[in-house]
Amino acid sequence: MAHSDTGASTTDYGLSEEFAVPSYFEQEKHRMEDFAKSHVSAGRRVVLITSGGTKVPLESRTVRFLDNFSSGRRGSSSAEYFLDSGYAVIFLHRHRSLYPYTRLYTGSNFLDGLKLETRGQTSQIQVDEDAFPNIAEVLRKYDAVKAGRLLLPVEFNTLSEYLHLLKAAAQALSSIGSKAMFYLAAAVSDFYIPASEMPEHKIQSSNGPLQISMKMVPKMLSPLVKDWAPQAFIVSFKLETNPSILLEKAQHALETYKHQAVVANVLDTRRGYVVVVTKDTHYELVLTDDEVTKKMEIEDKIVSKLTSAHTHFIAQKVKL
Amino acid sequence: MAHSDTGASTTDYGLSEEFAVPSYFEQEKHRMEDFAKSHVSAGRRVVLITSGGTKVPLESRTVRFLDNFSSGRRGSSSAEYFLDSGYAVIFLHRHRSLYPYTRLYTGSNFLDGLKLETRGQTSQIQVDEDAFPNIAEVLRKYDAVKAGRLLLPVEFNTLSEYLHLLKAAAQALSSIGSKAMFYLAAAVSDFYIPASEMPEHKIQSSNGPLQISMKMVPKMLSPLVKDWAPQAFIVSFKLETNPSILLEKAQHALETYKHQAVVANVLDTRRGYVVVVTKDTHYELVLTDDEVTKKMEIEDKIVSKLTSAHTHFIAQKVKL
Repeated sequence: MAHSDTGASTTDYGLSEEFAVPSYFEQEKHRMEDFAKSHVSAGRRVVLITSGGTKVPLESRTVRFLDNFSSGRRGSSSAEYFLDSGYAVIFLHRHRSLYPYTRLYTGSNFLDGLKLETRGQTSQIQVDEDAFPNIAEVLRKYDAVKAGRLLLPVEFNTLSEYLHLLKAAAQALSSIGSKAMFYLAAAVSDFYIPASEMPEHKIQSSNGPLQISMKMVPKMLSPLVKDWAPQAFIVSFKLETNPSILLEKAQHALETYKHQAVVANVLDTRRGYVVVVTKDTHYELVLTDDEVTKKMEIEDKIVSKLTSAHTHFIAQKVKL
Repeated sequence: MAHSDTGASTTDYGLSEEFAVPSYFEQEKHRMEDFAKSHVSAGRRVVLITSGGTKVPLESRTVRFLDNFSSGRRGSSSAEYFLDSGYAVIFLHRHRSLYPYTRLYTGSNFLDGLKLETRGQTSQIQVDEDAFPNIAEVLRKYDAVKAGRLLLPVEFNTLSEYLHLLKAAAQALSSIGSKAMFYLAAAVSDFYIPASEMPEHKIQSSNGPLQISMKMVPKMLSPLVKDWAPQAFIVSFKLETNPSILLEKAQHALETYKHQAVVANVLDTRRGYVVVVTKDTHYELVLTDDEVTKKMEIEDKIVSKLTSAHTHFIAQKVKL
């Protein structure tokens, strides 16, 4: 294999020293690499979507943790639009966060939509299609994606698992060059407590008020762009609560990391408005009232914009 | 109504000053009170189960929060055993944490267990009973509980919502005296950041490492036992990671708050071993290997022990 670098390396910005390499690192990397290569052979592109928030433990035997607000809605819905556009999808998501297709029905208790029908000795359980809008169509799509092995789920819980799996994914996808897109929608913590400074046991409330001191998480976008997947099309996300600093922060990120695009959004309006920022341009994407009524989703527009940009990016690489 | 005390009071240990009273406080209280009274009229007892972890925001427009490790497994499974024992259940739980009956199937993607069957023009969706073990029996029970209106779900997200809803529940259940049990299985944060000290916007990682300073959450068990529901049978939970301090901490809690029982458990062994501690006794409840093989759950034993103790408690109150 080309990748002899498994964990400790000079190019991971302290990742391996600060966060223990999980035992499944190599296995997951090969699984993702096999997936990517087989789809590229079949003429597809591959997108790695990260989705959901990361858990940051405050104790080694964890009772408490810091988390980021994220249901995984944007990542899971985007996965569906990428699949519609012909991409194969690696879905690197927080355990129990929203999942493509299933996400449409998590608002209700699924037992409420089942009907037990007894005929003589036998009984069978039917799905009440009124309780699950559009379920037949969704199930058809879901089954087709499964049959085509077009969606590879990979799960994380903690920040440490996320960081190592992202590295594994990046190294795995380096084998397909510019055919790979990274769509980094996960809400990753900026802060953590190093293992060496973490108490083993549950922090006792009888000790009085709590002072937590957190270090900054190394920015993985740097090695991702420079070392792990230098040929790939890389999209990061920027979520702010203050609209006035949004564009400036997105442009600053592009200058710092030199990747291809930032999807910038504000917490309160994130479902109806985003700005896709590239080195030289920025595009505002907005859902109109009419589109909202038709239950269109902003991710449809984001994915459409980015897949076009990816096409252009691949064509340029070929010309060079 | 007997309860003119809606929020601010001298008996809530600073709750209303530190955490804003939610607009739905009175409405939820009446909903719980109506539920409790109607079931007691029908000869049932009522248990309030709290379940899941509380979210503690670090910013007013929340991007980050502190959370407690809790899937809601213990609370949701206990609810089923209380229903089996003839109790009506108020299920005060964290939004999206495990729910009675449904919890049995959250390990798998429900779309994997559906089959689309097309016959001519019509199609229907059937449930593959192999994908959902025992689903017909579980659905029968779930539907019976729904038909009897025996389970009242109430949801919280944040610590603040939890505390106020617990108060509302306690005041609501005071009307049924000793027929009420409190089964406080939720993993409630011991720490929070007061609204006055919270930044409005997302904390910027460019400001450098993060120092968080958290205040201690007022212990609601005090007003619950003394003021809000002084006639009720109250059970608190103690989760530790260090077994050597467990029993002592449970006994200390009983001496401090003077309630009826503590269910004490250790993080690593919590699914197979608990100690039910009362003022004068403690009972160890253990799942044997044989019981584990038969998929028995420790909550079956916990609920059985506590419902007996509740019977005894009610009988003694009548004698006095």
